[in-house]
Amino acid sequence: MFLKLLALCLFAFLIYAPIAEARIRRYKWEVKYEYKSPDCYKKLVITINGKSPGPTILAQEGDTVIVEVTNKLLLENLAIHWHGIRQIGTPWSDGTEGVTQCPVVPGDTFKYEFKVDRAGTYLYHAHYGMQRESGLYGSIRVSVRDNFTEPFAYDYDRSIILTDWYHKSTYEQATGLSSKPFVWVGEPQSLLIQGKGRFNCSSSSLKADTCNTSNPECSPYAITVTPGKTYRLRVASLTALSALSFQIEGHNMTVVEADGHYVEPFVVKNLFIYSGETYSVLIKADQDPSRNYWMTTNVVSRTPVNTSEGLGFLNYYPNHPRRSPPTDAPAGPVWNDTAPRLNQSLAIKRVFVFKHMYQTDLKAHHDFIVTPPTTSDRVIVFLNTQNEINGYRRWSVNNVSFTLPHTPYLIALKKKLHHVFSQTPPPEGYDFVNYDIYVQNPINATTTSNAIYRLGFNTTVDIILQNANTMLAKNSETHPWHLHGHDFWVLGYGEGKFDKNVDPKNYNLVNPIMKNTVPLHPYGWTALRFKADNPGAWLFHCHIESHFYMGMGVVFEEGINKVGELPSSIMGCGETKGFGKP
Amino acid sequence: MFLKLLALCLFAFLIYAPIAEARIRRYKWEVKYEYKSPDCYKKLVITINGKSPGPTILAQEGDTVIVEVTNKLLLENLAIHWHGIRQIGTPWSDGTEGVTQCPVVPGDTFKYEFKVDRAGTYLYHAHYGMQRESGLYGSIRVSVRDNFTEPFAYDYDRSIILTDWYHKSTYEQATGLSSKPFVWVGEPQSLLIQGKGRFNCSSSSLKADTCNTSNPECSPYAITVTPGKTYRLRVASLTALSALSFQIEGHNMTVVEADGHYVEPFVVKNLFIYSGETYSVLIKADQDPSRNYWMTTNVVSRTPVNTSEGLGFLNYYPNHPRRSPPTDAPAGPVWNDTAPRLNQSLAIKRVFVFKHMYQTDLKAHHDFIVTPPTTSDRVIVFLNTQNEINGYRRWSVNNVSFTLPHTPYLIALKKKLHHVFSQTPPPEGYDFVNYDIYVQNPINATTTSNAIYRLGFNTTVDIILQNANTMLAKNSETHPWHLHGHDFWVLGYGEGKFDKNVDPKNYNLVNPIMKNTVPLHPYGWTALRFKADNPGAWLFHCHIESHFYMGMGVVFEEGINKVGELPSSIMGCGETKGFGKP
Repeated sequence: MFLKLLALCLFAFLIYAPIAEARIRRYKWEVKYEYKSPDCYKKLVITINGKSPGPTILAQEGDTVIVEVTNKLLLENLAIHWHGIRQIGTPWSDGTEGVTQCPVVPGDTFKYEFKVDRAGTYLYHAHYGMQRESGLYGSIRVSVRDNFTEPFAYDYDRSIILTDWYHKSTYEQATGLSSKPFVWVGEPQSLLIQGKGRFNCSSSSLKADTCNTSNPECSPYAITVTPGKTYRLRVASLTALSALSFQIEGHNMTVVEADGHYVEPFVVKNLFIYSGETYSVLIKADQDPSRNYWMTTNVVSRTPVNTSEGLGFLNYYPNHPRRSPPTDAPAGPVWNDTAPRLNQSLAIKRVFVFKHMYQTDLKAHHDFIVTPPTTSDRVIVFLNTQNEINGYRRWSVNNVSFTLPHTPYLIALKKKLHHVFSQTPPPEGYDFVNYDIYVQNPINATTTSNAIYRLGFNTTVDIILQNANTMLAKNSETHPWHLHGHDFWVLGYGEGKFDKNVDPKNYNLVNPIMKNTVPLHPYGWTALRFKADNPGAWLFHCHIESHFYMGMGVVFEEGINKVGELPSSIMGCGETKGFGKP
Repeated sequence: MFLKLLALCLFAFLIYAPIAEARIRRYKWEVKYEYKSPDCYKKLVITINGKSPGPTILAQEGDTVIVEVTNKLLLENLAIHWHGIRQIGTPWSDGTEGVTQCPVVPGDTFKYEFKVDRAGTYLYHAHYGMQRESGLYGSIRVSVRDNFTEPFAYDYDRSIILTDWYHKSTYEQATGLSSKPFVWVGEPQSLLIQGKGRFNCSSSSLKADTCNTSNPECSPYAITVTPGKTYRLRVASLTALSALSFQIEGHNMTVVEADGHYVEPFVVKNLFIYSGETYSVLIKADQDPSRNYWMTTNVVSRTPVNTSEGLGFLNYYPNHPRRSPPTDAPAGPVWNDTAPRLNQSLAIKRVFVFKHMYQTDLKAHHDFIVTPPTTSDRVIVFLNTQNEINGYRRWSVNNVSFTLPHTPYLIALKKKLHHVFSQTPPPEGYDFVNYDIYVQNPINATTTSNAIYRLGFNTTVDIILQNANTMLAKNSETHPWHLHGHDFWVLGYGEGKFDKNVDPKNYNLVNPIMKNTVPLHPYGWTALRFKADNPGAWLFHCHIESHFYMGMGVVFEEGINKVGELPSSIMGCGETKGFGKP
């Protein structure tokens, strides 16, 4: 009788187990420096459990992810950000050094725990100085809930991350950036597709033990496909600097998701992607199956200077995955042709409304529209400029170059340590009338500050990113801005100076896409709207590694009194030394 | 009347002030990475207030030194050890990461405060991983109390530090050392005298902006002397690897002090010096004053492999300090002639007592003898071997390769956190009868441990360092062992295997020198005695940077219950996260 009951129990368990309750996904990571040759050039790379990129986190919407990270980086600390995860209720797990936590010292293990509350394509990466570009990054793929049907069909799901790659260490780069005179990091040596690239070893007098193109560590990354099948390819960029174009020889790509949101599908030959963005594209393996095809990525928007193109293979089974295609790798689009890039931001229809305003049209899928509030409670304009302060090169927002305090904001705010950062509110805009965005910012017109923007809880906030000239005459750069803790609606893009009386009338309030990262194009503006509904302290910054290092960011606070008890694990630096008990 | 009194007070103050009461010497240091070219090759160097070596600490016996160190090393922590300062009553200021403190994270300021209780020549340097060799080091010069007469006379006092210099970063070196297969750091590229050397830039295909021998940063260091005057030159070594010979062309040197203790003077042409040692030598400027003279340092005891010799000038005023001597720089002694090196350890008289035992004769000055206890309470023998553990190359003591716990010992001991390190006592010796010191240690005969030696408070302890063969056939290396928190008496040196029944009878108990660092010669032994009278936890280790990193050290605890309240500033890592209040 007892055995029968047991058998029944087991049977019931087997039936119901697949109807997933939210599960816990546990990872144990060891982070260390290792010699690797991602682009055939041997240098120190930060690995997770021996790999860079690190392991892909696979979870389902509603799951809880727990990652226990042990720092084995010799003398170096770390912090890991979960890019695109909003950390609702767990702002202390955002992994942003100086904002939400103290760095994790060597020998210590830090536990990140958060809920992945929305299906989609996300990332993780170091968020401490310029540590990301040493190789500490990877993918997060959150599948939909059981019985949920996505608005497109595919047979298989794959992820790749595109990065650019430097041979100098993050210490060498950062020291140059903060030197007087300024030493620019320069263009990257290579582009990597899922951690693999190909540096031209013969271009300099390198020995074979330092650079060897026959090293299997740098054999091109291959995605193996079965002829006739459809693949969802999740493409993300974590470049330090470069804006990229990505293409697959002979295959169109249908864009179906961006930053975790379904988009009204559109077809591209080249996908333009900026650091911090993720896209899902559908690819049908419908070409001649007797050969392989090139996947390539190349730099756009900056003059290419000896940066080795990223190469990979779309491998048609049963061809050998390392068999080169019989063709030359396709060159990407011309680097300085901005029209197609802007077209993608706008997608398909390009409607001139005013001379400097487009209808934004990378729009939400018609079945998945999240309608934005029709008005906002506050509009903040962020003028993006490059500056020189006391001979040091900086980037600024409204002529304030951001610096991190030694005590993380989240702790300082929650514990009311008002003296650890400036309490003078930073500016809400700039001199709209007189400032000329087409000329250089005056020397020493800028200050540094660690002040933050405090937002009313649950208010609606508009951010206008306004681009301008750099320190170089007739030059303006592309800046991908990334917001922590939220998605925002992308209401509009435009050329030239934003006009607050005219441009808002043309915002897309009907079906705007939601994203967490958005490009600001040269001499243009980008308008965003978000709800300040996630208690915490959240960074908003240019995702170019050196730009944020040089001050291109701000911090928002909202609902700090609603933040739960902070774990003592995030403390230990600055004024939080000795806070709490273990 | 009041003014008169005030004037009297001031007068009294002016009279008595020079009769120094113990003073406080305050320093504020900012530590950061900078591009420097110490040997003409440009690389990242750790500087203090812009310099490497850092500022010399000048103090008088009895003073209190306070150094507030701000870490600006980007992603890297730090800890600074005050080498030779016993830290009586302040074991938490010893600056030994993992033993007496947690590392200081970037952005934080750590305050070291300690008394310099004995005149002499000391050092400071990083004590965190292999950070020292990045350039974070300097001199401490403690002058005698007023009205105290030293047992020798001189006109001027000068300090220099000798180091060896690598072009690879500490991360690159350490990663190689802990890789499988093992990647040895190799011989240094250059030797530096007071932070200046001369790499042969034309030896490799380096560009002029990377290596330039006309860079003033690498012009030879010059000591300017007035003809006829006598100079006390304090010579210290902080090499990462190399044993050195130091010489000044045409000038004898009279050794008068070693590690803060007066020695019975003896004259040398070459001073042999090991990493962690300090000596004062007297030099008379009694040669032809119409020219300058070479100061040189070169590697001994290891085969020199393209290591650029260290060169400096003894500059006779008024010759130009950069005017090269008309002679060729003197070559140092032959690198593999061990007899003169052993002679210096023994100094002057070399008396064979047994076939493998010498009378140690680097002896205390006859007016400054500190007589050692005639017997000891405990004898610990430390067999020094190189090992392979699971394919990793290590160094060991009694077949135990040392690892640091994540919670510093001093805090763990004081707070009784017994679980944070092994409580199994480490071995007091080895298989004296059967172990053959002339052959390689068997593979996997060794384990790792973080266990420590607990010493009875105020007991007298003898340490016998016993050298042996490395993993290489017919090879034994020189190891300079440095003890924190104490000076020890050097009772004897010998060749071959120490015999506990015979050799102690020949210890010098009459006038042994006291030191904090002592060489262990190839296939030899060195016998030390010290009083365990300084409450705290103290590292004893090989001062070769890579050897300690690979496990060549032990920790002693004594009188932990007598240690005062620990400052919370040393906490924050491992189990001490969140201890105490700021």
